[in-house]
Amino acid sequence: MEWKNLDTLKSFEKLQALKGKVDIAKELSGPDGAARVNRYLTPMAAGLCFSYAAKQVDDEVLAALEDLVKEQDLLGKYAALYNGERVNTGENRLVLHQLCRGQLGNDVIVDGVNKREFYVEQTKRCAEFAAKVHSGEIANEKGEKFTTVCQIGIGGSDLGPRALYIALENWARANGHLKLEAKFISNVDPDDASAVLMGLDAAHTLFIMVSKSGTTLETLTNGEFVMDALKKEGLDPSKHMIACTSETSPLAKSDAYLDAFFMDDYIGGRYSSSSVVGAAVLSLAFGGEVYQEILDGAAAEDLLAKNETLTENPDLLDALIGVYERSVEGYGTTAVLPYSQALSRFPAHLQQLDMESNGKSVNRFGEPVHYQTGPIIFGEPGTNGQHSFYQLLHQGTDIIPLQFIGFQNSQIGNDVTIEDSTSQQKLCANVAAQIMAFACGKKDENANKNFNGGRPSSIIIGEKLTPAALGALLAHFENKVMFQGFIWNLNSFDQEGVQLGKTLAKKVLSGNMDGALKAYSTLLGI
Amino acid sequence: MEWKNLDTLKSFEKLQALKGKVDIAKELSGPDGAARVNRYLTPMAAGLCFSYAAKQVDDEVLAALEDLVKEQDLLGKYAALYNGERVNTGENRLVLHQLCRGQLGNDVIVDGVNKREFYVEQTKRCAEFAAKVHSGEIANEKGEKFTTVCQIGIGGSDLGPRALYIALENWARANGHLKLEAKFISNVDPDDASAVLMGLDAAHTLFIMVSKSGTTLETLTNGEFVMDALKKEGLDPSKHMIACTSETSPLAKSDAYLDAFFMDDYIGGRYSSSSVVGAAVLSLAFGGEVYQEILDGAAAEDLLAKNETLTENPDLLDALIGVYERSVEGYGTTAVLPYSQALSRFPAHLQQLDMESNGKSVNRFGEPVHYQTGPIIFGEPGTNGQHSFYQLLHQGTDIIPLQFIGFQNSQIGNDVTIEDSTSQQKLCANVAAQIMAFACGKKDENANKNFNGGRPSSIIIGEKLTPAALGALLAHFENKVMFQGFIWNLNSFDQEGVQLGKTLAKKVLSGNMDGALKAYSTLLGI
Repeated sequence: MEWKNLDTLKSFEKLQALKGKVDIAKELSGPDGAARVNRYLTPMAAGLCFSYAAKQVDDEVLAALEDLVKEQDLLGKYAALYNGERVNTGENRLVLHQLCRGQLGNDVIVDGVNKREFYVEQTKRCAEFAAKVHSGEIANEKGEKFTTVCQIGIGGSDLGPRALYIALENWARANGHLKLEAKFISNVDPDDASAVLMGLDAAHTLFIMVSKSGTTLETLTNGEFVMDALKKEGLDPSKHMIACTSETSPLAKSDAYLDAFFMDDYIGGRYSSSSVVGAAVLSLAFGGEVYQEILDGAAAEDLLAKNETLTENPDLLDALIGVYERSVEGYGTTAVLPYSQALSRFPAHLQQLDMESNGKSVNRFGEPVHYQTGPIIFGEPGTNGQHSFYQLLHQGTDIIPLQFIGFQNSQIGNDVTIEDSTSQQKLCANVAAQIMAFACGKKDENANKNFNGGRPSSIIIGEKLTPAALGALLAHFENKVMFQGFIWNLNSFDQEGVQLGKTLAKKVLSGNMDGALKAYSTLLGI
Repeated sequence: MEWKNLDTLKSFEKLQALKGKVDIAKELSGPDGAARVNRYLTPMAAGLCFSYAAKQVDDEVLAALEDLVKEQDLLGKYAALYNGERVNTGENRLVLHQLCRGQLGNDVIVDGVNKREFYVEQTKRCAEFAAKVHSGEIANEKGEKFTTVCQIGIGGSDLGPRALYIALENWARANGHLKLEAKFISNVDPDDASAVLMGLDAAHTLFIMVSKSGTTLETLTNGEFVMDALKKEGLDPSKHMIACTSETSPLAKSDAYLDAFFMDDYIGGRYSSSSVVGAAVLSLAFGGEVYQEILDGAAAEDLLAKNETLTENPDLLDALIGVYERSVEGYGTTAVLPYSQALSRFPAHLQQLDMESNGKSVNRFGEPVHYQTGPIIFGEPGTNGQHSFYQLLHQGTDIIPLQFIGFQNSQIGNDVTIEDSTSQQKLCANVAAQIMAFACGKKDENANKNFNGGRPSSIIIGEKLTPAALGALLAHFENKVMFQGFIWNLNSFDQEGVQLGKTLAKKVLSGNMDGALKAYSTLLGI
């Protein structure tokens, strides 16, 4: 496997020569625009499709991107990953999150353990545990059923599972799938745990401690916070807590927990929603069958990412277009704009996934790179954003590429018809209108009312946000980020940038500090 | 009043010559760092302070910024605004949101009405109405007390009030100030209204329709959605709804509402939290006295913004440093990072406030400007962000200026001590550590573990997040954005960039479309 910097590739030179070539306003305007929309469209898993007609590409740019795929051997690198090579070179680890939901290549055996079987077994254990909680076989000290599950975790142990839970909570409530309501405690700010505890009935709540290492400061602290609160209510914490961790962690075999479920070092935190980190809380909330549908949607998308024909590989396409925008056009930010209130926290998950994976300045050999890498990711649901930051997206001095997500139907199905259209139709009309407004703009003699257009966007469209569609979305972005890391020659699976802050925080807490750090600490009352 | 483009100013030329001058790693390292921290510190209202020691400024840069203040007559422009000039030139409107919380200059009389008296009267009406709801004098059809208030609004009618409510909800709950729980419906996505309605007891809920014009598509649609739901439960909507709107709007004198409270055209949506848009929902939630404390905190900060000594004017300082970072250093994004879970939605409010105000490419005369204007704003609470996107902030290829917010004490006061420190101390230690890690970095032979530093930040520090501190924060950022608009010579009070999308969405809904717009609509099932 040859790992090469982007700026050593001939195809990159070719792409740079194509900078600014495609005028999307021109391409999408007029009667021919429809043909372009129907052409630059690729099926995804679970009935989704990826539309990139409003991106700055044409057949020539796509051909150059296809050259890049071959020159950087992107599909070979993907195969190396799923066949069990140590793609996380810095930490000398395998990268196996896809194995939690399907098997794309060889059996992966580590220390005599078939990893696919291990992950499947842990998922199954979560489902069986959840079923016993739902039936009341596992109950609180008084034999009463649990009504709530509360995840204690931070970063990847929080953002992904929380985004997925919120995405399906109302769908589940409306369709009889909501078994337990889920809550989340993440921040070391004591007001986070206090507020969550004020809002739930601890006697009927099952808490999940989630930390792969079993040493995460925030999670251990919040665990103690919760145990303290349980004891004050006269409850036995060990009857109210389970753990999701690695087999070697201090949480793994503690009698402080009812049970423990396992992942390992080959599942990165931000990629861990398919492991027990997602399986436990989501199986408890929705049941194991719904969770399996998420996994199946993700597995189907992972398969598509193997497609050698670029125009039939939505994850690779999205990745390539993103690199083109970042490293050729020079755009520094991508906005993720789901036209679905259920996806309100999905951008926060993508923010971690993308920025923590590819927000790096050195390649996988530890050498500085001389091109821009991962963009800033932010976003809020539409139509809310239209009444907020879209002003800057339309008329600001920088161009921000956009990633829309939309569905033909609502999740719950309640709606009203006003002026001959439903709310869902209004929602969909708005996202269609925005794509065109951003791309084509509108000339006006009054410069204040003028829209230059030329602002590129893609959209992922689905029939409805189901568990399978959600799984496909999750995997799509994981694969996109992975391919982009390959293209930029980064290790997308470590996060050395989080270490220095941790070290300095410990210094402050130990009182071992001086100079500016001491002055700031004093201002903050420490 | 002379309005000038930034790039015509001598002081701007001087600032450009100072680009890259200040090395914050050097300034903050070693024993002298403490003196810098204590020097570049300015008191704010309500016991807050603004610390800018980790920003790329020194006395020479500050002197050039002070020249800019004079050359662009920033305090004169502020005075013009609060004395009632038509500073919103595009729409030929006054800009009077500060008058809702205090009077900084002349009486402002429009059409014979003293505007300060008008706003005070409306705030008082909200407080009196709220007191009657709390006492049960105003009750539901069965004479039962309301337990919940639900705001129906979008953009400025949602983000500001929602952020303020969330900021004080747990403080209020812990301190006996939570009179009614508040919910919010904003998105035209029917799943938003459905989900909120599933989570509340409609028979005991008072709904507030919030739309200045009374014509906002999303809000009217959601109002109908709610009325429909109330009728289905056998309830009389007119006994469950009030309106916050302008006196000339269709909502103003409708017998569909129990009562109506008024703002006017001189209160921009994103600046409307101090008007009835915030007053009604927050007085109902927390009582009129708590709401008045928010206003008083804001008024005190507005007063500070008049200070002619730059180093005693935190709002102006923050604005100038932001312009220096954006237009001299060329940084495109600012991250807002509150170390307070209660401020979880405050960045979303600031995102609208800043990006909708200054995300523009033409000056107030409608002429294109040739410098970069408002930045992208995004953020999440710390320490959560540390386990997410901070990787990119520390080691990514772009520099992102940071705006921290922190408090010495938690709001609720529950805490646990683990390894000799409370959670609150851990929280504060982390933000102090992050400031230093971003500024000074750390050399490492392994480039993957190397931190370049040089990443600037400011921090606003308070004793506790009280209503007054929250009001001061709100006003600080409003004033910052206002001053930045003056510096860039923008009209920060219109939003023409949101119009085109609305027009195109109507086309889709009327079926009057073809080409790409029709193709996208078809994909979306319309």
